[in-house]
Amino acid sequence: MDTSPIFPKGQRAPARNFTGTVWVQPLIEADSAFNIPVGYVTFEPGARSHWHRHAGGQVLLALGGIGYYQERGKPIQILRKGDAVKCPPNVPHWHGASPTVEFRQVAITPNTATGRVTWLQPVSDKEYNSLDK
Amino acid sequence: MDTSPIFPKGQRAPARNFTGTVWVQPLIEADSAFNIPVGYVTFEPGARSHWHRHAGGQVLLALGGIGYYQERGKPIQILRKGDAVKCPPNVPHWHGASPTVEFRQVAITPNTATGRVTWLQPVSDKEYNSLDK
Repeated sequence: MDTSPIFPKGQRAPARNFTGTVWVQPLIEADSAFNIPVGYVTFEPGARSHWHRHAGGQVLLALGGIGYYQERGKPIQILRKGDAVKCPPNVPHWHGASPTVEFRQVAITPNTATGRVTWLQPVSDKEYNSLDK
Repeated sequence: MDTSPIFPKGQRAPARNFTGTVWVQPLIEADSAFNIPVGYVTFEPGARSHWHRHAGGQVLLALGGIGYYQERGKPIQILRKGDAVKCPPNVPHWHGASPTVEFRQVAITPNTATGRVTWLQPVSDKEYNSLDK
């Protein structure tokens, strides 16, 4: 059986929006006919996005590893291979890897007239470690 | 390494829209806030959709196996693990497995005001086998 990764890891994500090491591979670039970019993201252990929100919402498909996902005001949710998450429009949230295992996801993010993503503050260590509390 | 399938195979797809055996697992159901259903589809060898078109276009992500994809008036395109296809709105097309190897895909299909899919005629054996000609 072919156990090689499905998608290439791509390039390092911009450090200004992430904590730790994150890789992004665009799979589908938006255009005027299909304005829904799709990307593949690999979070190394401990890495996570900053808090952010999407004007058009977002879907995450967990392809492997162990991920963390949190919407503001809710507890961290653990994501495992095969999980699918629908994040509602304009709800602040973050996602990333667990502290010890990387996380691989596909992200589907509509590019609306009011934009695709608004970045907010970093996820603090206290927030990131709140699962154990 | 965990080599189990990422998503469950789901249920048999309706025979009226497919030739051969096809399995569909909904991953994301559309709602008023995120009206972009996402599904996982497994085509057994030789199986394929009928010709159809999407008012909002469609993205296919090839997760494994060997797939066929054809837009009307163009040759069949072979899809392998990691390939991503963007099918423009209203372009008649079909997709399925190769004759001897199954095909596993994620389909992202916006549910527009004018609908999600319009089914057309079956793919004939002559059309399906046109790759070898």
